[in-house]
Amino acid sequence: MVPHLTTALTGPINELEARILESMPAIERWFRLEWMEHTPPFYTSVDLRNAGFKLAPVDTNLFPSTFEHLAPEMLPLAVQAAMAAIEKICPEAKNLLLVPDSRTTDPDYLLNVQRLVQIFSQAGLNVRLGSLDPALAAPTARSLPDGSELVLEPLLRTRGRLGLKNFDPCTILLNDDLSAGLPPVLEHLHEQYLLPPLHAGWTVRRKSRHFQSYEEVAKKFAKLLGMDPWLINPLHAQCGQVDFGTPGGLDCVRANAETLLTKVRRKYKEYGINEKAFVMVKSDRGTGGLGLMTVRDVKDLDDRERLARHGISAARGGTDLSEVIIQEGVPTFEHIGDAMAEPVVCMIDRYVVGGFYRTHAGRAFDESLNAPGAAYAQLAFAESTQLPRPGVKPGASAPNRFYMYGVIGRLAMLAAAYELEATDPDAESYE
Amino acid sequence: MVPHLTTALTGPINELEARILESMPAIERWFRLEWMEHTPPFYTSVDLRNAGFKLAPVDTNLFPSTFEHLAPEMLPLAVQAAMAAIEKICPEAKNLLLVPDSRTTDPDYLLNVQRLVQIFSQAGLNVRLGSLDPALAAPTARSLPDGSELVLEPLLRTRGRLGLKNFDPCTILLNDDLSAGLPPVLEHLHEQYLLPPLHAGWTVRRKSRHFQSYEEVAKKFAKLLGMDPWLINPLHAQCGQVDFGTPGGLDCVRANAETLLTKVRRKYKEYGINEKAFVMVKSDRGTGGLGLMTVRDVKDLDDRERLARHGISAARGGTDLSEVIIQEGVPTFEHIGDAMAEPVVCMIDRYVVGGFYRTHAGRAFDESLNAPGAAYAQLAFAESTQLPRPGVKPGASAPNRFYMYGVIGRLAMLAAAYELEATDPDAESYE
Repeated sequence: MVPHLTTALTGPINELEARILESMPAIERWFRLEWMEHTPPFYTSVDLRNAGFKLAPVDTNLFPSTFEHLAPEMLPLAVQAAMAAIEKICPEAKNLLLVPDSRTTDPDYLLNVQRLVQIFSQAGLNVRLGSLDPALAAPTARSLPDGSELVLEPLLRTRGRLGLKNFDPCTILLNDDLSAGLPPVLEHLHEQYLLPPLHAGWTVRRKSRHFQSYEEVAKKFAKLLGMDPWLINPLHAQCGQVDFGTPGGLDCVRANAETLLTKVRRKYKEYGINEKAFVMVKSDRGTGGLGLMTVRDVKDLDDRERLARHGISAARGGTDLSEVIIQEGVPTFEHIGDAMAEPVVCMIDRYVVGGFYRTHAGRAFDESLNAPGAAYAQLAFAESTQLPRPGVKPGASAPNRFYMYGVIGRLAMLAAAYELEATDPDAESYE
Repeated sequence: MVPHLTTALTGPINELEARILESMPAIERWFRLEWMEHTPPFYTSVDLRNAGFKLAPVDTNLFPSTFEHLAPEMLPLAVQAAMAAIEKICPEAKNLLLVPDSRTTDPDYLLNVQRLVQIFSQAGLNVRLGSLDPALAAPTARSLPDGSELVLEPLLRTRGRLGLKNFDPCTILLNDDLSAGLPPVLEHLHEQYLLPPLHAGWTVRRKSRHFQSYEEVAKKFAKLLGMDPWLINPLHAQCGQVDFGTPGGLDCVRANAETLLTKVRRKYKEYGINEKAFVMVKSDRGTGGLGLMTVRDVKDLDDRERLARHGISAARGGTDLSEVIIQEGVPTFEHIGDAMAEPVVCMIDRYVVGGFYRTHAGRAFDESLNAPGAAYAQLAFAESTQLPRPGVKPGASAPNRFYMYGVIGRLAMLAAAYELEATDPDAESYE
């Protein structure tokens, strides 16, 4: 099943697909060489948007929470990738402490945790779950939709180590993106591997920093393929101090949105794209889709009511939304039935282990699909991202499109590797 | 689909399955630690036999020629494993020279070569085929059953390197087991990686040496699980100088067969196994199943006519059959329909990438199934070897049985790693 691309202009993306397929050995070699120099994040998921004329990542998640959406047939790939990941980090490991996001009680999220337990158990580790909730005083079972249970246990912190009762792990795998702040219990764990590292959490991370690295990666990759990096890179700008409460507080956002819209319109003209350019205004930190607004014209930013409806207001301004990223909007023109579809690529270590489509019938092509909604669904990629079929007409083959998605997903993962190196607080000690 | 085990005594194998499943994290960790010390062969396939009371490898192939029998759904695992293998050996590689067995024109074998080309191309290499046939003077196409073609090219040898016209590979992947001898064109290639190394070929390799290493591995593993190593280890003995032309030439074989039969009968008694013990007499080198004979009583060895029928005669004695291994026969009690079935596990680097059943309707439970025959078929494992389902009744779950086969297959692969270290002619230079 390949979703329909319902746009008149599919030439650029089909050309990109053809170029990526014919350059496959060069691309894979390029990734191999990059991974010799840079360490991939432990696990990653990347939201992509395919506009037909452009394919770009719009969000790179370093604490992926959607493993339950992968096709069961893809699980062996995840297990094998997990084996490779563990072997590099802590081959003598017996125990893995998985620390999920303890704030969410979403059954879907619990299924994701269950899937992670399954993957790492089958990779050969004793996996137990520790809760960041200080109120959790004894092992507590959480019920899953399938009738099974997950047991969360209180964390036990000694001077240098974190564990559970009778459970001393070599590695701690964090699945909480720290958007609620950094729990002291996770600090100064110098005797164990804490993965991803704390600076991959939203207390330190900024989307604008990530997309700065992504631009660098996209330029390198575009040079390798001899193409315009804009075809895979969403332009962006950033405002570090936005005061939503004052009349001039949005000046920086307005100015950047204007500049970005002009740049995008110029690109649309260059490629003969008959779409209305737009930008997305969003928090520079992770907020799970909150404070995300589509801006087609800078006048949109004067509409206080509309801003408030998107969670952008003085009330929130003091916290999450004082830092803002303005990003070129990439329309999604993939459809499954009546619903817009957005591909998500999932990776463990440097390997693409699968992907799925996030679909949303209630949203338009220029809105975020990462939002609750009645018609919200997740459809696993029906075929592997690793078995392209060279020779098939561009745009006609699901495996070829998925391979291309896997390549762009890995570019965003590589950008995250660059980003984490640049933001590592302990970087000096490596030199 | 799990083949039926048509034997009264399935207790020991179900107990082994249960023990392997419950020890999964310990087993996977043990393998991780072993792979820190030992280098896995580049690729391996292992023939197993499941007697219900015993599960053992009977042949470990370091130049596997059966990749075409893997289920297509398992291919992504092979690609991912190939990526990991290349990355370790020659990450900057662009080109891979694949050297197939040029003596066979079996269409099945060509499909295996095609599958290898596919796997390593998708892992990111330019793959071309070089022929060991000195008579091949120009690129020559070979037709495949599916209508496609493979092009074999003449090898070009310079002082230190091997390649093709306009093709200088970093790595040479050999898929010829060298049972016809060592081609001079492959010698002294010190500037490139030749994999597997020449001493993995049958000019140097001996089955008895392999099973000596396997015994060591089986004992370690049995200690880890607290079980009798005999349950996974076929006993063996070896005769280094057999002269089939002289009256006393078979004395060593006869004596060893007698000793082995006595040992096996004792074990059968210990476990209450109501089967007739037998041993296999075969060439200590690879002969593709030639010279392989079932011996239920040492008197069988006096039957010259029977020996000759199995290719064991003075005429052959001078070459392949001067060295003989006598191996405990492991009956296969797995059935698919009316045919006997024997599992084969395929691996790339340290990873199990799939498996299949070799079935043969014309053979009995105590004969080799690796022989031509009208009812010869290959059935891919329907499910992954990496997704066992703990909790399911032993013997009732295909994924659990396949996981156990993957473990025993990896034990044989580890034994091959030990064996290749011990027989490495350049071993000193590593110290």
